[in-house]
Amino acid sequence: MTKTYEPLQSVRWENDELILLDQTKLPEQTEFLTLSDVKQVWEAIERLKVRGAPAIGITAAYGVYVAVRSFASATVDELLSEVKKQADYLATSRPTAVNLFWALNRMVRRAEESAAAGQSPAQIKQALLKEAQEIQAEDERVCRAIGEHALTLFSDGMGVLTHCNAGGLATAKYGTATAPMYLAHEKGWNIKVFADETRPVLQGARLTAYELQQAGIDVTLICDNMAAKVMSNGWVQAVIVGTDRVAANGDVANKIGTYGLAVLARAHNIPFYVAAPLSSIDLTTPTGKEIPIEEREAEEVTRGFGRQVAPNDIKVYNPAFDVTPNEYVTAIITEKGIVRAPYRENLQALFEK
Amino acid sequence: MTKTYEPLQSVRWENDELILLDQTKLPEQTEFLTLSDVKQVWEAIERLKVRGAPAIGITAAYGVYVAVRSFASATVDELLSEVKKQADYLATSRPTAVNLFWALNRMVRRAEESAAAGQSPAQIKQALLKEAQEIQAEDERVCRAIGEHALTLFSDGMGVLTHCNAGGLATAKYGTATAPMYLAHEKGWNIKVFADETRPVLQGARLTAYELQQAGIDVTLICDNMAAKVMSNGWVQAVIVGTDRVAANGDVANKIGTYGLAVLARAHNIPFYVAAPLSSIDLTTPTGKEIPIEEREAEEVTRGFGRQVAPNDIKVYNPAFDVTPNEYVTAIITEKGIVRAPYRENLQALFEK
Repeated sequence: MTKTYEPLQSVRWENDELILLDQTKLPEQTEFLTLSDVKQVWEAIERLKVRGAPAIGITAAYGVYVAVRSFASATVDELLSEVKKQADYLATSRPTAVNLFWALNRMVRRAEESAAAGQSPAQIKQALLKEAQEIQAEDERVCRAIGEHALTLFSDGMGVLTHCNAGGLATAKYGTATAPMYLAHEKGWNIKVFADETRPVLQGARLTAYELQQAGIDVTLICDNMAAKVMSNGWVQAVIVGTDRVAANGDVANKIGTYGLAVLARAHNIPFYVAAPLSSIDLTTPTGKEIPIEEREAEEVTRGFGRQVAPNDIKVYNPAFDVTPNEYVTAIITEKGIVRAPYRENLQALFEK
Repeated sequence: MTKTYEPLQSVRWENDELILLDQTKLPEQTEFLTLSDVKQVWEAIERLKVRGAPAIGITAAYGVYVAVRSFASATVDELLSEVKKQADYLATSRPTAVNLFWALNRMVRRAEESAAAGQSPAQIKQALLKEAQEIQAEDERVCRAIGEHALTLFSDGMGVLTHCNAGGLATAKYGTATAPMYLAHEKGWNIKVFADETRPVLQGARLTAYELQQAGIDVTLICDNMAAKVMSNGWVQAVIVGTDRVAANGDVANKIGTYGLAVLARAHNIPFYVAAPLSSIDLTTPTGKEIPIEEREAEEVTRGFGRQVAPNDIKVYNPAFDVTPNEYVTAIITEKGIVRAPYRENLQALFEK
């Protein structure tokens, strides 16, 4: 196993090739794929070899370039029509991924703008590659900025607990909740991370533990129900998690288990931080009560990992997310800075900056 | 699958035969074994077909009778020596089970007392059967008494959350934390139970969910990290758990995750009850700080469900138990009644009754 001692990049453009970490092989095997045609890109997205909204968007963006780079078109119009056709094709790889459509639309728009500016087919292709690289670079900048703000709340030698995977694998680099861990590691700080395994789908065990271990960060895996003991042992000085959506009042929707963790952090006087890119803050959702909580199938709980572990036909409650009320949130860390209560005013102000 | 609508008895003496529920087949299959010789009893204990301290003791006690009932002895002394030999043999089936030795010693003593009272070999054999039945009946009385006291804290329609398995499968009948659920069910009350799956070994999923389902009790399985959400949904009005040891000051050692649950219950104004037979209250342990916490192997966490779910060589913290400080314990429910704070005085008084 190669230790890179840097955040593992799950999507890379290298030597004119699209390189993807095959996340379906994790956590046992670290295997990179070279995707040399659009069909391979489509399959990689469809078969979940790449996961996480930003990483999917970035992969699809490169996919558009991969699809058309060898297209021998006589005219700009033919190329534009091919770009649209390939973007439409890639959009079918994961029909519920909003970030995928956003990235593909951006690629089509870039081709159209280049054409409108009178560029040649060869120039348009170069513009597409640049756009994909820019989408990736923007995501990396957002994550790094979140990490830098969060780092002002961290210190050398600190213990940090996290839940689920708001990690680098899902983004261009650094992740959100993991960003300050990587930046602390860059600085040579010794941060001791505790990763909740995160039942039922075990993203903490399979992904967070994996990516931090790969980067050489001191990480200890625990079951979710051990977090309270780790806190009472005095081993953690901060909890930091990602988020699926922050409401206008600062209520935070995130992976199931986050709310309980926030309550436990409060009981142990440990600050509870949420790493949230601006794109996850939704001022049109007034409070957490308006965020629908998806319930998922019983089998995730009863036979998630090989063996059946519960009786046949057992009733199961399996909410995918929970909402942490704003009063448990010490701070929300965005790429534009750290926001504290009162959240309604301060989140609003962030967007007016 | 047969629904009994009564607590499933994991050990039964029926039609002059020892009948055992094969717990290694749970939760998929309900299979009863008839143990007709001592070697089968020894193997059933050794291969964990029976588990839980009381149930193991009861099985071994019947095992002594099964071992000697066909022993054609000319003299009382020959029978006594056979009883001791068979008890010694059964003691090797699980060398760390204190309750096993306690039950076997009691059987040997009963044989000796019968002999001293001038009974015949046939009478001594009958005394042994009676002693095994008495050991079972005593355990059932203790569990039932705990259940009756606990039931005074319950009401029809109530939601109850429990952790791990302090259930009937481990005891003669009723269990400890589950006893009020069975008694409520007997009364025709509709109690809605939420069972934490209880990582890493999943006793809640495999055993508690199973036995309550078998008895026709309304039980819903959840992952441990969903308990906080179930509480905030307003679905539970009490948490009740068993215990491995209660210290003299009322601190409670129990399966990992119990302490976090107690903190969450407090935050939601839900009473937190501990079902504790007097045999689990240890006045010689001053506080929970003196209770050693066993740490178990990483594999329970990393490959507990069959497949490997975490990276190779990941560091794991896997404490088997935690200690809930007495201030989080609303009441301790024993066979002699309900004890509340101040625990040091009130637990002491219980033993002086």
